[in-house]
Amino acid sequence: MADHTISFAIAETGATATAAVPTGSLLVEALQKAGVEVTQPCGGQGRCGRCIVQVTDGSVRRRSSLRLSQEDIAQGYALACQSVVEGDLQVVIPLQEKIARRLTTDRIAAEVRVPEGYEFAWSQTIRRYSLSLSPPSMDDQTDDWSRLQTALRTQANIGRVNCSIALLRRIGSVLRESDWNVTAILDAAASEAGGPARLIDLRPGLGSEQDPLWSAAVDIGTTTVTVWLVDLISGQVKAQVAEYNGQIARGEDVVSRIIYASKNGGADEMQGLVVNTINALIELACRRVKARPEQVVKAAVVGNSTMTHLLLKIPAASIRLSPFITAVNHPPLMTAGEIGLNLCPDATVDCLPGVASYVGADITAGVLSSGVSTTEEVTLFLDVGTNGEMVLGNRDWMVTCACSAGPAFEGAGVVDGMRATEGAIEEVWVNNESYEPTYRVIGGGKPRGICGSGLISLLAEMFLTGVLDKAGNVNVDLKTRRVREGDHGGEYVVAWGAETEHGRDIVITHVDIDNLLRAKAAIYAGFTILANQVGVPLESVAKMLIGGSFGKYINVEKAVQIGLLPDMPWERFEFLGNTAIRGAYYALLSQQSRERVADIARRMTYIELSADNTFYEAFMSAMFLPHTDMSRFPAVEAALRKT
Amino acid sequence: MADHTISFAIAETGATATAAVPTGSLLVEALQKAGVEVTQPCGGQGRCGRCIVQVTDGSVRRRSSLRLSQEDIAQGYALACQSVVEGDLQVVIPLQEKIARRLTTDRIAAEVRVPEGYEFAWSQTIRRYSLSLSPPSMDDQTDDWSRLQTALRTQANIGRVNCSIALLRRIGSVLRESDWNVTAILDAAASEAGGPARLIDLRPGLGSEQDPLWSAAVDIGTTTVTVWLVDLISGQVKAQVAEYNGQIARGEDVVSRIIYASKNGGADEMQGLVVNTINALIELACRRVKARPEQVVKAAVVGNSTMTHLLLKIPAASIRLSPFITAVNHPPLMTAGEIGLNLCPDATVDCLPGVASYVGADITAGVLSSGVSTTEEVTLFLDVGTNGEMVLGNRDWMVTCACSAGPAFEGAGVVDGMRATEGAIEEVWVNNESYEPTYRVIGGGKPRGICGSGLISLLAEMFLTGVLDKAGNVNVDLKTRRVREGDHGGEYVVAWGAETEHGRDIVITHVDIDNLLRAKAAIYAGFTILANQVGVPLESVAKMLIGGSFGKYINVEKAVQIGLLPDMPWERFEFLGNTAIRGAYYALLSQQSRERVADIARRMTYIELSADNTFYEAFMSAMFLPHTDMSRFPAVEAALRKT
Repeated sequence: MADHTISFAIAETGATATAAVPTGSLLVEALQKAGVEVTQPCGGQGRCGRCIVQVTDGSVRRRSSLRLSQEDIAQGYALACQSVVEGDLQVVIPLQEKIARRLTTDRIAAEVRVPEGYEFAWSQTIRRYSLSLSPPSMDDQTDDWSRLQTALRTQANIGRVNCSIALLRRIGSVLRESDWNVTAILDAAASEAGGPARLIDLRPGLGSEQDPLWSAAVDIGTTTVTVWLVDLISGQVKAQVAEYNGQIARGEDVVSRIIYASKNGGADEMQGLVVNTINALIELACRRVKARPEQVVKAAVVGNSTMTHLLLKIPAASIRLSPFITAVNHPPLMTAGEIGLNLCPDATVDCLPGVASYVGADITAGVLSSGVSTTEEVTLFLDVGTNGEMVLGNRDWMVTCACSAGPAFEGAGVVDGMRATEGAIEEVWVNNESYEPTYRVIGGGKPRGICGSGLISLLAEMFLTGVLDKAGNVNVDLKTRRVREGDHGGEYVVAWGAETEHGRDIVITHVDIDNLLRAKAAIYAGFTILANQVGVPLESVAKMLIGGSFGKYINVEKAVQIGLLPDMPWERFEFLGNTAIRGAYYALLSQQSRERVADIARRMTYIELSADNTFYEAFMSAMFLPHTDMSRFPAVEAALRKT
Repeated sequence: MADHTISFAIAETGATATAAVPTGSLLVEALQKAGVEVTQPCGGQGRCGRCIVQVTDGSVRRRSSLRLSQEDIAQGYALACQSVVEGDLQVVIPLQEKIARRLTTDRIAAEVRVPEGYEFAWSQTIRRYSLSLSPPSMDDQTDDWSRLQTALRTQANIGRVNCSIALLRRIGSVLRESDWNVTAILDAAASEAGGPARLIDLRPGLGSEQDPLWSAAVDIGTTTVTVWLVDLISGQVKAQVAEYNGQIARGEDVVSRIIYASKNGGADEMQGLVVNTINALIELACRRVKARPEQVVKAAVVGNSTMTHLLLKIPAASIRLSPFITAVNHPPLMTAGEIGLNLCPDATVDCLPGVASYVGADITAGVLSSGVSTTEEVTLFLDVGTNGEMVLGNRDWMVTCACSAGPAFEGAGVVDGMRATEGAIEEVWVNNESYEPTYRVIGGGKPRGICGSGLISLLAEMFLTGVLDKAGNVNVDLKTRRVREGDHGGEYVVAWGAETEHGRDIVITHVDIDNLLRAKAAIYAGFTILANQVGVPLESVAKMLIGGSFGKYINVEKAVQIGLLPDMPWERFEFLGNTAIRGAYYALLSQQSRERVADIARRMTYIELSADNTFYEAFMSAMFLPHTDMSRFPAVEAALRKT
């Protein structure tokens, strides 16, 4: 076979490179041959979109155009991992920043208010002091470390201070380079408990009191890692960035990642992948505010228990196996250097405490930021991601549990399911006479599939119009081409091939519906068990708070109609977005909030659903639309009567 | 040139190897070619003797036979680095252990008494507890780390405990492997100051209270590293081992090592060399008591300030340059893992505090073990190695200084000087009429040179018999062939070539005498300055304690006669051997002793001789035999009158 010449132009640096490859090669292979690095967090499966390039001359055969819009394709954009070379090509590698912006959720950086009453000097355990030392002489041969300790004692009233060997190695040169005028950063957390303060960094020069002092809140989601860069002096969030968790390429859910990490070398790899993701995000956030990662002196980290174990390379196998035990719910304070984070090496890294194997620090942080633990009213808090974790309680008591809802609402396990990105059907309406659907597509182009909110509204509409019965069976006797017998039972056609981007029908099958019913039943059964446990009827819950990006887009009415959320007046529902990172941010800022998270973790009573003998019954009762017990869903009953 | 076949048999493993090398190759090159590793701490200069091999067939040309006795040579022993190949050879690599025993000072393992009143439970900060945990279940899903903390609280009364990430990673498997019966080792040092205790190790099984619990006292000398392996339960020293400091190959004295460490990569290399030396010694000591290095849970380390800095890879350059400042005199507690020691990774490593650039932890430890800091009587303590450090004081006050005496008394800087090993003239007598010498040789064979004690006795005898005048000049007008004009002034022949092992005359030259005078004058001037500083006449000192291996062999009378030691009744002198390792041992065993070392370091007043304007005068006054002021040496005056 003849070789083709592929010329690359790298927008970031202005550099060019060439490679010769035979017909049939993937573009990503040509890139590798040309020595051009491209990131592939999804492992080259066309899912993450990070290897996007623009073909400016010549054309490629596309194996998959997931993640690309018609417009993208028209402009020559292609995923290198999915593009087959069939001739000479001119290819541009776009600016990395531009790619990141296309993909990540930081397009809309939410305004975050600094908590009321925040003051660096009072709320923080981090201290910063400008110190002028008298230089040594033949008459004063005090060693550098004692000299610094004396300055801290006399100029900053720090009685006892500790220091790592690595930092000790640098002290002498910093003192001498800066002519004995330095800025010391310390963590005083331990000194309040009678221990010594800890020196985090020593920087040359005296600086100004207004100079920012950088820290980071980190939320390690199974799917997405989010970082907020925070100035501890003002308390303000100065940058928000997010990116897929690099571990995705080694398993989509926590169980498959635990299995991978248990293999030889797997734990090292898993830790490396998430550490790289965090480091890249910190780097990106720092670039935005013109800071350097080594200036970041503190981090507060949340994540589900598996994510925390994998970050710390602590064996996670026992999380997966009965009786489902974590090695540690509340890791000790550590330093960035200990786990390989590219911050200041002695930066304090505070992994917030979780409750159990499936209720992690993301939930305790969510409880903090959502206010469940301080309100008088009985509140139900739900965080839906790959799993659904929920908390019922108020300032006096809290019970919590986790349901393995599975990723159906993230579009997985559903034939035409997809994430909530361009081309996803996000809302559906079904005509109750013609059974013809109308839908809205993210980005406005032709549909490629259905995302979570679309699936919820589709199910609800099908049920209310009689396309589905209570048990979720498609009524194939309806007089419409939209319902038909598929390979796996009855199915409903949402979009005909002629209207879709890929030319195939977009359908929802019996198996899809069953998966969705299982997911919603697991979540609703969780609510039921929590309410039964404390003897509080679900309908008496004063507030229902929903965290996670999932909640941001769903239509409450539809979610209630399928029995995913309890039937309550709509004003009781509140969508809070990422409550986990917000909780991490609060704990990062204030020692009082930090202690409140620990208190929350201690106070929450965890209910292991697999050990609860009423769960199965509650689950089976919720496997109907909206539920076997219609008295729980009066508003849905009313709506059914209307249609 | 024809190649010769060299066959090696390795006694340690029973393995064999062969190499073909041309005439003129060194045996060490043949070893390298054959892939046989030999250690060469002296860098291949024939000084350390570690590359000794036995030629069983064929013969080699010896460049140098330093370190070998006639008997050794007769048996075919040769130093690989000094042996030139001239034909086929059969060579045996002896057991490493055998070589070590030939060389190191552990041939005579001194009986060390456990300090009175030592009791593990009361004297130690290390704790050991056998714990039985209740296993987790669906009804008790407490995480492993909390479960262990609960057991420590309820079964061992340990309120707060901290743990490294590395150890956290192992806890789950240790608990499960041992069926939830474990032994926890903790360091409670910080908990007495209000901080948490620190978990050092978690071992499967419950064990017995009598099982040994291993720890190590380490003395890093510039020349020799000494390790005592100590059972913390009984307090007994169970093994004593010593070996040349691997750094010797990169410089004999502290100044040249600081310079080497300041070069690119030098600090890493220096740390690696001494860490390897310590690890090898720990390994050897553990093998003797059938323990494993990872069972060692605590170490107390002493050494001069440069040795401590190089061990911790802390830049030492400022030690060498005026105003001679250490980066740190009292390093924080650290763990073995932090500095690469192959003990239990979380073993507590306690580097004892020093006082100044040239008065290190070896001296504070020496003051502890010699009792200077607790006695009522005014005591003078001297530790002579490559430098001479001294302390004058009692329980109420102490002053200290260091003299750069140089290594003359270790045989360096003296034409026929050598260390106190086989073939060294260790004592000399000169006939006061014929000026003919008589001498005693270590090992009883032919002499190869003169060691420190030999040089002291030689100087004293030459002075008393009039071969030398007060200023140290050789009286070349004497009627004896023994005195003659050499290349560098007058010299005295101690042994004729016919009597010596190498066939050359053994002489002491004018330059040698000058070097020795400088060394002794520096030390005596140090005594003078200390005494002047506190207004105590030297002759009123009640006790003179001498530490270091140097002291073990010298003749006090002769040392006084040359003015190295002050003229006092002999019963006031006491030789204590290695006071540094003994002090480390005491501090290792008892927290009270450990605190006393810190107190000693704080209390000692350091006098920098180079900043003292009376030092030069005191030094010049001491550049005579025994001193310009003969009234200071009444006993010597009396002896002179007798001869």
